Amino acid sequence: MAEERLKKQMDFIVEVDKIKDIFRQNYLTDGSRRENDAEHSWHIALMSFLLLEHADDNSINLLKVMKMLLIHDLVEVYAGDTFAYDEKGYEDKLERETAAAKKLFGLLPEDQTKELIELWEEFETLESPEAIYAGSLDRLQPLIQNYHSQGKSWVSHDVSSAKVHKRMAVIKDSSESLGKFSDELIEKAEKKGWLK
Amino acid sequence: MAEERLKKQMDFIVEVDKIKDIFRQNYLTDGSRRENDAEHSWHIALMSFLLLEHADDNSINLLKVMKMLLIHDLVEVYAGDTFAYDEKGYEDKLERETAAAKKLFGLLPEDQTKELIELWEEFETLESPEAIYAGSLDRLQPLIQNYHSQGKSWVSHDVSSAKVHKRMAVIKDSSESLGKFSDELIEKAEKKGWLK
Repeated sequence: MAEERLKKQMDFIVEVDKIKDIFRQNYLTDGSRRENDAEHSWHIALMSFLLLEHADDNSINLLKVMKMLLIHDLVEVYAGDTFAYDEKGYEDKLERETAAAKKLFGLLPEDQTKELIELWEEFETLESPEAIYAGSLDRLQPLIQNYHSQGKSWVSHDVSSAKVHKRMAVIKDSSESLGKFSDELIEKAEKKGWLK
Repeated sequence: MAEERLKKQMDFIVEVDKIKDIFRQNYLTDGSRRENDAEHSWHIALMSFLLLEHADDNSINLLKVMKMLLIHDLVEVYAGDTFAYDEKGYEDKLERETAAAKKLFGLLPEDQTKELIELWEEFETLESPEAIYAGSLDRLQPLIQNYHSQGKSWVSHDVSSAKVHKRMAVIKDSSESLGKFSDELIEKAEKKGWLK
């Protein structure tokens, strides 16, 4: 039984290695190359730990946040990355990703399949304080990466500050201070001409 | 005060982006390229969550394990990666990494500097059930990567199965079933001629 569970878990652990080849639109802070989902997920899981004091809700379960952040992009192994400002890509994003979640998380033992699907759905629908905090970091980190890489990704996709403000709105729902920080970063980026 | 803390935390969050450019000796499972520390750290943090049931000690604090794994390689931003089978590199590894820890973790507010240095030291010295479990995953993951990339890194460094068995010993200290799994993987790799 334990052996059978371990086999399934190992199959999953090997399969998700593919996430290291799913590249996002944002660049590393030095602008040298785009970053992949594994790097992004590591970065925001670390941020969840370091920035917890800034969350307005002080009852957040950090372990749950970390689990969410470590798995939140895994569906992209089968569904691919959808750029945050790609309206067309968003039309069938949920459908593509739900099928991918069933296929990928289904490799695990049944109880873990259920747990990961639930964590992923909670994250996607921003249904809890944990999901809102996790979702805000998922937006804040690429904002930081985009700013430090001199808006490289924004410029190449002709993104407006209004669109970035809209996407970053959830940050304010989780933290007044992180919301303020992100507003200031967007304003600075606009002044530098990196956002229309 | 909160603003000053946030500034320090953000400086740290930007600085550790460099870990995405610290490449390890092991390859992705498809053998296409070597993996970096951010990818490796993401992978083992996820493994800590999925494989917890296999730890012999059932009182492990998973949140502490995840924090350790997310930060365990950060010192390499300044100290570089030391290949697990590089005896010369290991001679001054501790000295180089301790200086790096003070410099890097010192960017954070004082209480967090202290917390991260303590977590890192606990991990390095395998001083607790959490550190032993974390340390075993830090060894198990590259073993899996090396096996699935057909021993590419082992072959190029002429590594022996005796050396791999020695390095993997800590896995048995954390988990009988993971220890058995790693032994079997090493034996299979030896039969395939990927380990001397």
